Amino acid sequence: MRILLTNDDGIYSNGIRAAVKALSELGEVYVVAPLFQRSASGRAMTLHRPIRAKLVDVPGAKVAYGIDGTPTDCVIFAIARFGKFNLAVSGINLGENLSTEITVSGTASAAIEAATHGIPSIAMSLEVDWKKTLGEGEGIDFSVSALFLRRIAEKVLRRGLPKGVDMLNVNVPSDATPETPIAITRLARKRYCPTVEERIDPRGHPYYWIVGRRTTEFEPGTDAYALKMERKISITPINIDMTANVDFHNLLSELG
Amino acid sequence: MRILLTNDDGIYSNGIRAAVKALSELGEVYVVAPLFQRSASGRAMTLHRPIRAKLVDVPGAKVAYGIDGTPTDCVIFAIARFGKFNLAVSGINLGENLSTEITVSGTASAAIEAATHGIPSIAMSLEVDWKKTLGEGEGIDFSVSALFLRRIAEKVLRRGLPKGVDMLNVNVPSDATPETPIAITRLARKRYCPTVEERIDPRGHPYYWIVGRRTTEFEPGTDAYALKMERKISITPINIDMTANVDFHNLLSELG
Repeated sequence: MRILLTNDDGIYSNGIRAAVKALSELGEVYVVAPLFQRSASGRAMTLHRPIRAKLVDVPGAKVAYGIDGTPTDCVIFAIARFGKFNLAVSGINLGENLSTEITVSGTASAAIEAATHGIPSIAMSLEVDWKKTLGEGEGIDFSVSALFLRRIAEKVLRRGLPKGVDMLNVNVPSDATPETPIAITRLARKRYCPTVEERIDPRGHPYYWIVGRRTTEFEPGTDAYALKMERKISITPINIDMTANVDFHNLLSELG
Repeated sequence: MRILLTNDDGIYSNGIRAAVKALSELGEVYVVAPLFQRSASGRAMTLHRPIRAKLVDVPGAKVAYGIDGTPTDCVIFAIARFGKFNLAVSGINLGENLSTEITVSGTASAAIEAATHGIPSIAMSLEVDWKKTLGEGEGIDFSVSALFLRRIAEKVLRRGLPKGVDMLNVNVPSDATPETPIAITRLARKRYCPTVEERIDPRGHPYYWIVGRRTTEFEPGTDAYALKMERKISITPINIDMTANVDFHNLLSELG
């Protein structure tokens, strides 16, 4: 079995290293990941400049490249260089990826990119207490999330994804144990209410930070509710086709 | 009526200028757009550095800011600075935005960002013959696409979007006339098969360009078919919730 592994925290993240270990028991793991932190990249592609690829030593991987591009660039590079894969995994991400904001997430978007190439994919994210870790996830215990990644990946490799499902978006609570239950969930509508914070630079000119304020409302049945309120592992089945399920004939009379 | 206008080609694009003209007949147009070309940004947000905002003179706009960030940053900045809008428009983009690859498109992703804030939104793209234009769309006739943008925007402002529809993804053929028919479409599954092209730099080291090879298969009913084969204006109703419509109970027994 050939498994493509990427992430958005970068190839030196402890999260991707934990994923290599978990997945290398299931097949050959090809790691192609950004050289640096590329969170919130969405499904951006680097089209206006060329990208570079650097061989990196990642224990347990068949081969590993670090790319000075986005997570989506990594998926495109991997398929161009190595051909088809039986499974694509993105993660294990430092921090959860919930709600319709998954299209902002580099982790989830890389899995979406793989799905558009017909590769069953899994985006794997671990809720993190940021006070407890440094940049690459030092001090974070990935063992439980790695265990669940291995279990889920094994099932997807054996049976594929059900018809109508292109990708699984998985989130693991920070306090999960091997006995933590799984909930199949839908995406919450909104998880962040981003805004901007104005500051003044030393020369007296304004600049702005984007601030991702979190909502505190959690609707039962959603990924956010399962993770944050029920402390369950949430698995959301994703279909990449965002066409709204409405009556096209009515819509045409309204708009035409 | 308050209308937010953005794009991914940048605030100096002739496409956004044409949109200002069309929309200013319907309400106050607030333009917040990238200072530079930001195509293929997806729904990326700039979180690792602050952004700058610069007042730009855009005739017909109530106010216009150029941002050194992504299209999604622009939407967040606009809402933080000016409050709610009755409508958000992204475009008129130089070049079509079709298929499930709309999550790569900065144009469509900005409209998706606006939709997550509860603002009905329209992504507007014009098929372009690239041999006929320069960087900012010089030589391109936006009059027909601007006419359709005005028509559709007027209807959305008057009646909102139907339940279950968050955004309209509109594509106009390069040879459209005011009589060109509209087709309500679904997203094609895939429009590009991106790959990488290896080149060697003057120092003998490899670098890679991402190349977006287009597919030539067009399935009837899709946006790509309507635009490319039928030469119709395609309108695809988008729902931002990508949760797959499958049996959650079955999925849990498969994965649990």
